[in-house]
Amino acid sequence: MIRIAIIGLGLIGTSLGMALRNADPKESPLGPVEVVGFDREPRVTREARGRLAIDREARTLAEAVREAQIVIVATPVRAMQEVFQELATLLPAGAVVTDVASTKAQVCRWANELLPRTVSFVGGHPMAGREKSGPAAADPDLFREAIYCLTATHDTVSQAVEAVEALVRTVGAKPYYIDPEEHDVYVAGISHLPLLLSVGLVTATGSSPAWKEMAPLAATGFRDVSRLASGDPQMQRDILLTNPHGLTRWIDELIRFLVSVREQINAGDGATIEQMLQQAKAIRDAWLASKPHLRPGEADFTAMPTVERPGLLGFRFPKREQ
Amino acid sequence: MIRIAIIGLGLIGTSLGMALRNADPKESPLGPVEVVGFDREPRVTREARGRLAIDREARTLAEAVREAQIVIVATPVRAMQEVFQELATLLPAGAVVTDVASTKAQVCRWANELLPRTVSFVGGHPMAGREKSGPAAADPDLFREAIYCLTATHDTVSQAVEAVEALVRTVGAKPYYIDPEEHDVYVAGISHLPLLLSVGLVTATGSSPAWKEMAPLAATGFRDVSRLASGDPQMQRDILLTNPHGLTRWIDELIRFLVSVREQINAGDGATIEQMLQQAKAIRDAWLASKPHLRPGEADFTAMPTVERPGLLGFRFPKREQ
Repeated sequence: MIRIAIIGLGLIGTSLGMALRNADPKESPLGPVEVVGFDREPRVTREARGRLAIDREARTLAEAVREAQIVIVATPVRAMQEVFQELATLLPAGAVVTDVASTKAQVCRWANELLPRTVSFVGGHPMAGREKSGPAAADPDLFREAIYCLTATHDTVSQAVEAVEALVRTVGAKPYYIDPEEHDVYVAGISHLPLLLSVGLVTATGSSPAWKEMAPLAATGFRDVSRLASGDPQMQRDILLTNPHGLTRWIDELIRFLVSVREQINAGDGATIEQMLQQAKAIRDAWLASKPHLRPGEADFTAMPTVERPGLLGFRFPKREQ
Repeated sequence: MIRIAIIGLGLIGTSLGMALRNADPKESPLGPVEVVGFDREPRVTREARGRLAIDREARTLAEAVREAQIVIVATPVRAMQEVFQELATLLPAGAVVTDVASTKAQVCRWANELLPRTVSFVGGHPMAGREKSGPAAADPDLFREAIYCLTATHDTVSQAVEAVEALVRTVGAKPYYIDPEEHDVYVAGISHLPLLLSVGLVTATGSSPAWKEMAPLAATGFRDVSRLASGDPQMQRDILLTNPHGLTRWIDELIRFLVSVREQINAGDGATIEQMLQQAKAIRDAWLASKPHLRPGEADFTAMPTVERPGLLGFRFPKREQ
């Protein structure tokens, strides 16, 4: 029996708990697990327990990590510094600590400075999410087929790496080892830049005096490109603030792109524009073909408010009948 | 029996034909229809016929519009000038001409200059689409619940407006009357700017030397914000080239947004960033709540290559049983 503590029971923490507890102990590389959960807000801890994401609620951080072999810190990234400070005196010797933050360089520095030498740290970042937050939005299948970044160094003891890798495989994700600084630049491009563009689209159009007349015309293109703007503002703020170096580079790239497209459009330069569009299509189509599991799925349905979800029943009943 | 000619049998032309022919003549405001189709490429015309989008294939433009009461020009926007020129001598007196182009000011000017006074023109733009193109991607339900912009003026004879409005309602869409210039500025913001941002995201990340390492990390956020980059490059080129005035304004707005966010991120100005994120979320959530039909639906599934579509079966069987 492996005891796992999850600190922070938002979307990711709760989804991890559900996935860990759903896993078949005979199949899972972790074997049988006991999940203890803690959130600063007792209401959230109770909600995660109600969703069967944890076996036990802890009332304090100390209670949560007592005898824990793996500690998953799943708080917002900017709270992690404080959590690491508090954990320093509480962690059992030999514990393996991991996190789920969207940026890695700063978190790894904090772990290095603040966690005791008696524990091991392996940074983690599951490349999965939803625009909804909190335990209510959690989904045990959130990590299925997802890439899960891990930031082990050559100092990290191999048992710690193995433990976190087993955890990643247990929730259905694929470990992907990467340097923290590289991670942050890459993720800024493929994850934080899309967020900024979603928010930029909504901000530009939505604060226009014409928005009231424009809004009815907006359809699926607007819906998809703006989707990330519906995420959790606090979490997004933290992500943007902890990755200025990575982001600045891509923001500059986008500004250069927009300036040059603006010129091409005003010059009526159809050939250059078409070449650019063809190149982008080729890149995107090739990427999508390499990601067959990235189909709009259940999460996309549940993420839409006030709609029926007829298809899901048909999808789920056969599973339950088994 | 109303005879309708569809000129250009791509995604929109073919989908319109399918929707018109699928409509119950007893329920539809148009009553019984006969749809004649023509595409410059005979292969495409045959394919549309194979999809039951048209009753008859025309081998020439003249044959297509002979005795037609409604003529739908569904070619790429930049071909419309030439099509209008050719149609000028071919159109039966009293015919109602409409188009489906994504930009309206220029098309309305061409119609005004080139079409004879014996016919009426009502510009149209269905706010629906997919990133796939051609008859194979057509869907009779594409326009269901969609807003369908119409650009009638006070000169337009009321029978022509009524005919096009009946056509719009027959395919399940909602007429939305709008001035062509206003349409172009609005649509530039909610449709063409999202396209540019999708393409910009893919261009910036995809042409980076690190793309090979970044690509595996890209997940659903990247997928959705980049979706429009998989559209038809020629159609997109035409859209961008025929709406420079509308687009420039929004491109400038986006550049201003990116410059100011860049400053806020580098200044660590969490309060301003959070306020911006909160505002964008409020705008987007309110917009989405006003659009309950805009859930990811069947088209989103079929648009994804090589995936199973389990949920859809469950959705459809109950309907058939009725």
